This record gives sequence, structure tokens and C-alpha cells, in this order.
Amino acid sequence: MKRRRIAVLGSTGSIGAQTLEVARAHPERLEIVALAANRGAPTLIAQAREFGVHTVALADPDAAAQARAELPDAQVLEGASGLSELALATGADLVVGAVSGIAGLASVLTALQHGIDVALANKEPLVAAGEIVTQAAGRSGATIIPLDSEISAIFQCLRGEDRRTIEKVLLTASGGPFARLNKQELAQVTPEQALSHPTWKMGPKVTIDSATLANKGFEVFELKWLFGLRFEQIEVVVHHQSIIHSMVQFHDGSMIAQMGAPDMRVPIQYGLLYPERVANDLPCVVLAEIGQLTFERPDVGRFPSLRLAFEAGKSGRSYPAVLNGANESAVQLFLEGRIGFTDIPALAERALEAHEPFDISSIDDVAQADTWARRFVAHEVRDGSVR
Amino acid sequence: MKRRRIAVLGSTGSIGAQTLEVARAHPERLEIVALAANRGAPTLIAQAREFGVHTVALADPDAAAQARAELPDAQVLEGASGLSELALATGADLVVGAVSGIAGLASVLTALQHGIDVALANKEPLVAAGEIVTQAAGRSGATIIPLDSEISAIFQCLRGEDRRTIEKVLLTASGGPFARLNKQELAQVTPEQALSHPTWKMGPKVTIDSATLANKGFEVFELKWLFGLRFEQIEVVVHHQSIIHSMVQFHDGSMIAQMGAPDMRVPIQYGLLYPERVANDLPCVVLAEIGQLTFERPDVGRFPSLRLAFEAGKSGRSYPAVLNGANESAVQLFLEGRIGFTDIPALAERALEAHEPFDISSIDDVAQADTWARRFVAHEVRDGSVR
Repeated sequence: MKRRRIAVLGSTGSIGAQTLEVARAHPERLEIVALAANRGAPTLIAQAREFGVHTVALADPDAAAQARAELPDAQVLEGASGLSELALATGADLVVGAVSGIAGLASVLTALQHGIDVALANKEPLVAAGEIVTQAAGRSGATIIPLDSEISAIFQCLRGEDRRTIEKVLLTASGGPFARLNKQELAQVTPEQALSHPTWKMGPKVTIDSATLANKGFEVFELKWLFGLRFEQIEVVVHHQSIIHSMVQFHDGSMIAQMGAPDMRVPIQYGLLYPERVANDLPCVVLAEIGQLTFERPDVGRFPSLRLAFEAGKSGRSYPAVLNGANESAVQLFLEGRIGFTDIPALAERALEAHEPFDISSIDDVAQADTWARRFVAHEVRDGSVR
Repeated sequence: MKRRRIAVLGSTGSIGAQTLEVARAHPERLEIVALAANRGAPTLIAQAREFGVHTVALADPDAAAQARAELPDAQVLEGASGLSELALATGADLVVGAVSGIAGLASVLTALQHGIDVALANKEPLVAAGEIVTQAAGRSGATIIPLDSEISAIFQCLRGEDRRTIEKVLLTASGGPFARLNKQELAQVTPEQALSHPTWKMGPKVTIDSATLANKGFEVFELKWLFGLRFEQIEVVVHHQSIIHSMVQFHDGSMIAQMGAPDMRVPIQYGLLYPERVANDLPCVVLAEIGQLTFERPDVGRFPSLRLAFEAGKSGRSYPAVLNGANESAVQLFLEGRIGFTDIPALAERALEAHEPFDISSIDDVAQADTWARRFVAHEVRDGSVR
């Protein structure tokens, strides 16, 4: 059997580490040929040694220098462009896009433009540049395979189905760690509290996005672009147990759901080995032990990020890139202790309101909208407080 | 578009009536070309007039005579053999097997032997003669499409999937109307009580089988034979809401579930129009309104029919046909008020214990086991009471 050659962009993060775990479990099917990270040289160096990888990239120049010193036989690419060149340099069959934030856009786009399939965990490229990314894949014939558990669920529910028969998709949301807090309590949430997600172990950006439900809003964009849906066909349902990972309602009255233990290795393995389902030792769900699954409508009053995603999505043009940039800036400010938890969606909403929209037809347009949003947020936040 | 030509065996029963409802909703895709029933001439005559059907069959000679009088232009076949000849006589593309009980075996088998696809609601042929039925389909290349909501669920969950990747299937059970009764209360259940099923509107035989969980046991046989499973791969889970119609657990940790409103027209339409999913106005499930789905293990202490199905299935040979025959006889006696509710599984169990098994290699062997079981039950029940 020919092994699938994998380039992991964002190998030192949570999804990157779990990707390598899956690769470790299936050495006869998967070969890691390239690793890239923003910084985090020691972890990447150890990964390169374990998997015998000779081509790596580090965005940070100091980290790249350290890798050159410790991996004398390896080719070490550098800078943001290093990440984009990496997949091409190694002739990978599949790029895992697991960089955090909009920083992942260029490398994902480069891979798709060159006809390389991408297993995508990084949501922001589809939020800010969904049309550009999916058109690039369409032109080259490359496939985008979702790694996110909810989006993988929809991808799995659609196996063997005709997408024209979709009535709507039901995107499940755990509700986040603060599902039960009122507005006043939400305003007091600290970064430490927000970083401890009840179900999924993830990096800081996506963990905060999960707590504000901005992450769920971003998944709406993933669904829209990956499955060619209208925003009106996407509905969010709060499901605290995170056992049903999402569902498709077909126009004949049938619904198909994908379920499983809340363990990212299941959708990651599915994405890396797609279309094969390969046996593993990962945990399974025992419904009779869980006893019940609950469902409720999301409260967009307390969690406006979800509403903003639908609004920005339906308005289109540069609004989604502004939403993404404003949110990414605000999350950073929250993590630095400079703004409160509820300021994150408040700043994103103000950015959307203040923005003069323009058409997005290139990655430069995306960058322009992103920069505008970040400057707007920086300008709104002065002297450690939101103006 | 070429219309699919349908022969409905058992058109006057509940599944038959709903099959015609689906045909009525999709006249551009479905054409009813033949109708058959045991008796119930007036209903069948009205159906034949509505759908312009010129070939019908009635097992009962008096009913056949009545049909001949009222449908002078129609060919009216008669007797058990009439049902078997019907599908062949009309050149149907698809036979709907919706006769009640083992009486449906011969006609289903004949259709399959002649390469005609069968949409099967009638469980007993697969219980008593699963190997014969599925081998006949395998030889001729005909497809058996399940109409039963749970079995259709598994069929739908397996769209685009490789059956070798199934770890197990989870068959959901509503628990029946008596899920909360204790053994003493179960012994007092009357036919009237048992005939009012909480969720599904069905004929008397299958309604009683649902209340004893014998029906769930029969579905285990359907799953075994239609999907080539081992009995060890089939697990029953009680799910009172009947929203998840069944699930497949794959060996990669993923589970796929099919869900929907408890309305038989959804799986019937799926079976008649397979592989197309066609838009309709049938009711959809709104999970946020339902609020919760519950799951628990079945209680085989109070509902031994389920245990008997697995035991007879694993023992094989003539045991399943004996289970089916004994159950069918006992249900009839219960409906006649001659035995109690808990006597149904008790008689089936005694029949299995007393039976000297033999190999089943023909429909005659099935008939022999069936006859033995019915005689055994008749012999056990004397003077209106169980000996």
C-alpha cells in the first residue's frame, strides 16, 4: 500500500499534536513528510526527529535558526512564506491546515492552488476568504476535507448523498463553559476561566472562540463554503453532551446524524485516511450509559457572536473578513487582560457597524479588510479599557 | 422519466395503505400496477379503481369472486399462489412485500428468484427463512430494500459506506406501550390494551409483536440477513421517543444515526424511490422542541421475546422458523382471548426447548418447522388455558 504523504502546518498546536498521534497509530498508511509551526522550535525539532522529517518551516526567524542548528540534515524554511512553500517542496499528498487564525490562509491557499488536498482544521481562512479558498480548490480539483468535529460530522453524513437533497444542516454547539451564566456574570469571566473548556482540549484562540460562540459562528462559514449551502440552511442547536457532532436534514423528512465520543482524533483520522474508515482503539460512545441527549435553541441575546456570524455572512463582501479580524484582535486583547469577555463580541459588532464594505476578489482584499478591522479594534481600546 | 412499476402485496393493510399514499404523492415517479391482499375485497377494489390497476390477487376465494364481479376488466388471481404469480404477471419493477406473517414468504421469494427487487416490510420471511431469501436475491441479483423504519435507518446509515467497517448496529426500541409494567401487570394485559401502540399505527400482528418486543427480535433477524451481520454485532437500545430510528457504530469510533418523525411514510418513500431522496411534505423532527432523547438497556427479564430471538438466531437451523411459527400462533391465541400476554413468549420458549432441530435448505423445510411449532402451541393450549 502506498502511504499518504502528509505535511502538517501547525504541528506544535493541539490539532497538530493529535494529527501526529493518528499518524503514529497508522504508520502503514500515513507518512509525515513536512512539519511547520509559527514558533515552538523545541517541540517541532522533537517531532521531526521522531518522524524522520527532513523538511520543516518555522515562521519565527529565531525559531528557524534554532531548528537549523539542531537539525543539521534538514531543510529549514523560514517566515510566513516558508509555510506556503513547505507543502510544495516536499510533494505532499495532503496538507493538514492547523495553523491558528488568519495566518493560515496563505499556506492553505497555496496548497489548493497547486492541486494538493487540504485537511482543514483552521477555520479563519473559510470565514475571511471562503469564496477565494473554495474557488481555488474548484479550479485545481483539490479536495478540502474538514477536520473539525462538527464539519467532519456533516461531511460524513453526506457520504453517498446528493447535496441537492439537503434541506438544512443542524450544527450542534456544546454551549461552551458559560452556557448558564447571565449577562452580568459573562462580563466578569476571566481568561483563566475561559481557557478551561469542558469538553474539548484546544489552543487558546479556539477555546475563547468556543466560549463566546464565535467559533460556532465560524463553523457556519465552514459549512456554507464547504457544502455550498445558503446561510438560511444552517441552524445551530445547543447540545451540551457533544455526542451528536452535527446532523443533516434531507428534503424527504430523513435526518442523518454523526455521533461519537468528544475526541478530536476520530475526525482527524477520518480526514487523514478519507475515504477509508480504519479500525482504531479510540473511545466509543455507549448511549445506554450516557442516558440522555438534550437539545435547545441557542441564546443569541447572551452570545451575540453567533448572530454576528450570520449577519456578516449574509451581508458578504468584506464583512466576514472584518468580523474575523476584529474577533481575532479582541480575543488577543482579552487574553492579555486588557478587555472583558463580553467586549469581544461588542468590539466585533462595532467594527461591522463602522465598516464601509468592499468586494473581496483577492487575498490582498482580505488582508485589507483584516487590517482595517484590527486597527479599528486597537483604536477602540485605549489605556487598557474599551472606549 | 420512466415511472417505477410497483406491485403491492398486502395492499389493504397499514403498510399497504401508506405505500399507496406515497404513490399518490409521487405519480410522476411511481405507478401501481398490481395489488394483492389476503381478503378485504372492498378496500382492494376501491384501490384498483383509483390507481387504474388491472391485475389483482386475493388469497381468499370468496374475496376473489367478489373482485371478479366488481372489476370485470381486471385479471383476478386467487389463492396463495395468486400472490406469487401477481408480480410476474405484471412485469413489476418492484414488489412491496407487506403481507402479514409467514404467509408472505412464498410471494417474496418468487419475486426475488425472478430478479425482481423487493421492498420488504414483512419481517417473518427473514426470520424463518433468512438464508433462503437472501441467497435467492444474491443469485438473481435482485435487491431487498427494507421498509421497516429501523431497518431503513440502518440501510440509510450505510449509504456510501463499506459494510466491512461496521463494528455493530444499535437497533432502537420504543420499549412498547408496556415498558413500565412489572411482570404481574404484564400478565394482565388485554388484547385491547396491547393493540393501542403509542407511536406507530400498525396491523394487529405487528402491534402485539411490538408490545412483547418479539418484533424487535424479528428486526434483529432482518439486520442479520440484510446486512450480513453476526448476531453479536447487533445490540438493542431502548429509546422511548422513537426519533433515532437506529444507528451504526463503525470500527473507527464514528457512529451514524438516522432520525426522523415516527411516520412510516418516510421509510416507505425512501424504499420506493431508492436511491433518490425526493422532497415531500411529511412531518420533520424539531430537536429543540423535543428537548431530549433518552436511551436505556432493554429488560429481557420482563420481555423475554428479545432474548429468545437472539438465542434462536445464534442456534440457527430450524429454531428461527420454530420461534416465528410458535409466536405467530400464540399471538393469534392471545388476540382470541385464549391465552395471556406473557404466555406468548412463554409458549415460544417452550416450543424452542422442545424442538428437535433440523437443517433448513428449502421452503418446505421452513413449512415443516412452522407446522411443528404451530401444532406444539395448539397442543399446549387446551380448553382455553395454557397447560
